[in-house]
Amino acid sequence: MKPADREKAHNQLLKDFDRKYYGLKKRYKKRLEKSNKKVKHSNGIVQRYINPVLTAEHIPLEWRYDLNPLTNPFLLERIGVNAVFNAGALKWKGKYVVVARVEGYDRKSYFAIAESKNGVEKFRFREKPIKLPETADPDINVYDMRLVKHEDGWIYGIFCTERKDASMPDDPSAARANAGIVRTRDLLNWERLPDLISASDQQRNVVLHPEFVNRKYAVYTRPQDGFIETGKGGGIGLGFIDKMEKPEVKNEIIINPRVYHTIYESKNGLGPAPLKTPEGWLHLAHGVRNTAAGLRYVLYMFMTDLKDIGKVIYQPAGYFMAPQNEERIGDVSNVLFSNGWIADDDGKVLIYYASSDTRLHVAETSIVKLIDYVKNSPADLLSTGKSVDAVIHLIEKNKTRKSGK
Amino acid sequence: MKPADREKAHNQLLKDFDRKYYGLKKRYKKRLEKSNKKVKHSNGIVQRYINPVLTAEHIPLEWRYDLNPLTNPFLLERIGVNAVFNAGALKWKGKYVVVARVEGYDRKSYFAIAESKNGVEKFRFREKPIKLPETADPDINVYDMRLVKHEDGWIYGIFCTERKDASMPDDPSAARANAGIVRTRDLLNWERLPDLISASDQQRNVVLHPEFVNRKYAVYTRPQDGFIETGKGGGIGLGFIDKMEKPEVKNEIIINPRVYHTIYESKNGLGPAPLKTPEGWLHLAHGVRNTAAGLRYVLYMFMTDLKDIGKVIYQPAGYFMAPQNEERIGDVSNVLFSNGWIADDDGKVLIYYASSDTRLHVAETSIVKLIDYVKNSPADLLSTGKSVDAVIHLIEKNKTRKSGK
Repeated sequence: MKPADREKAHNQLLKDFDRKYYGLKKRYKKRLEKSNKKVKHSNGIVQRYINPVLTAEHIPLEWRYDLNPLTNPFLLERIGVNAVFNAGALKWKGKYVVVARVEGYDRKSYFAIAESKNGVEKFRFREKPIKLPETADPDINVYDMRLVKHEDGWIYGIFCTERKDASMPDDPSAARANAGIVRTRDLLNWERLPDLISASDQQRNVVLHPEFVNRKYAVYTRPQDGFIETGKGGGIGLGFIDKMEKPEVKNEIIINPRVYHTIYESKNGLGPAPLKTPEGWLHLAHGVRNTAAGLRYVLYMFMTDLKDIGKVIYQPAGYFMAPQNEERIGDVSNVLFSNGWIADDDGKVLIYYASSDTRLHVAETSIVKLIDYVKNSPADLLSTGKSVDAVIHLIEKNKTRKSGK
Repeated sequence: MKPADREKAHNQLLKDFDRKYYGLKKRYKKRLEKSNKKVKHSNGIVQRYINPVLTAEHIPLEWRYDLNPLTNPFLLERIGVNAVFNAGALKWKGKYVVVARVEGYDRKSYFAIAESKNGVEKFRFREKPIKLPETADPDINVYDMRLVKHEDGWIYGIFCTERKDASMPDDPSAARANAGIVRTRDLLNWERLPDLISASDQQRNVVLHPEFVNRKYAVYTRPQDGFIETGKGGGIGLGFIDKMEKPEVKNEIIINPRVYHTIYESKNGLGPAPLKTPEGWLHLAHGVRNTAAGLRYVLYMFMTDLKDIGKVIYQPAGYFMAPQNEERIGDVSNVLFSNGWIADDDGKVLIYYASSDTRLHVAETSIVKLIDYVKNSPADLLSTGKSVDAVIHLIEKNKTRKSGK
């Protein structure tokens, strides 16, 4: 090629690059600035919003594309992001902050902070993802951080850390899961603490209670079946830690077990840290049952006693939220999962929930409504006959109401 | 009924039949002549098309309906087709030819050739499906043929043949899979060769390399876990055959293993035969991981050395393509699979991929882009920390770019 032709080709390449980049930026900006509305219908308990608040397309272009035309002449995506989901959440300096699980095309996930002014739209990621400090045994994967502002002054992030199960070297899919712990005072600098020490081989869905209990830290756990001492059936556990610098959980007991023929028959685990209300601690959890098409994850609620946090005082039958419409489909279909919610000063509650391991949504309710919901919805009486009785009781009750309007 | 009435009824029946048949033909013709467009957005690496190129509805009416009103007065479908998917592909006499897997309502699949002028739309099936020659042990099912024009002059089709597993007579679902082999010089007359002989009890995803290697035929294999000698973890193997008339594979080694916490953690297998480029052999493969909702199949790429085809020289982290939108759902949801692609003379590459075992799609890219993709996308460093480092490195690099646009 002659020098003149080479220069012409080079200029054409730069022109094409700029045109493509302009298109990408336009598309990205539109995505970010999208406003959000409530869906028309709700069951009164919880109000969904139409659009997800975070998706893979919300990840900044700078994280995915090499934007230098000399090193990426065709403007190919270099590091693809597959999904943005399960996020911890916190109100922080007047903003609604989520620590999202960002999963790459490579299946590894990591944490990144996104912020919004009103909590329901226009979330923006910070400049970079979180560079998570490691222990001596590096995390192979991390996910599902619960953010908790503890009364000790720290903000804790407890997350799941996975490494290969060394006891099964021949099975490349065998993983060992435990709770990793970080803390921060500013959501900028993170200190890594040792991983949780517990009697269970595997731990997922570990959540820190925001207050001291008898001067100890309290943690909700989800010991795996191997953890025989406190009930082979598993369930949501509660245990205590003397100091977070040596996070050994003791006296673990199951406070919310798995039960036959419920929506938490196969597995259950706590979602975000509980919210304190005048009537008790509000808990959001996930329940799992098995189906011919795989596991189905739904969200349910219960309330524990203010004085005895191990005692469930209310628990409505069945689920609080289940996958609907587009939420049903994704990388892992039929899954709702939540590990973050924010109780606002005015009593509003924003629930950040992910659908099918693919995207993050928000739903709105209030402390008052949630208290009403957990107190006044019938409990699960664990048989079809009793479920029918509850329906007939309600029908009869409705006959006696005064107004014909 | 009086003869006059009978004739009237008969004429009415013929009239109804003709009306229905006219409706079917109209619908079928419309389906066949549908044009195809690129989807608006792409990641630069690969460009999808909006419509599938083949579906069950592309199967000629003559294959499905008895079109004689005397023997099929209600014009009922007699032999239903369930799905058209996983297709081998070849440019042949100026046309884009695919050998599709056609699956009947009866779950048996067979092969049928469809052709298109431009490779992205208006594929038409030939008059009849392929009557596949059999060995002494008849195939109970066949699927996923890879078409390869070998330098020996033959076009080979290697496919999976399944028979019942005789060692488990009480389990009607126990199958034994092996590679069946046919060859042709004209895509009309097919010669059956003996099935593959290998050290593995089961073989799927066997693919012929298009060139001789040290005067031997080279085949990519996917030995099952029973095949202990070359690594219990499994993966994509490479072995050699002296002559195709006695296809015994020797010296099988794993060239692309399964790896913990990747998208090919549970299974992997080669897609179509590799494409030769100046920089190496381009490979398209599928990777499988397990989820709470079943297996997830995605496509990934790697490049092997021109001189040592067993040596992987580039492999981008994660997937190349994963199920999107409608592709996510089908008879076997959450599956992308490809066993055919065509590299055109101008460097364009058409990838024929199926979604969720239901339909066949096309996506477009080029040799130049694919080389750029495999060489310049970061490799998988197998931990979340290193994935974050790669993202942060890219963000930092993007800060230094010149243009402020």
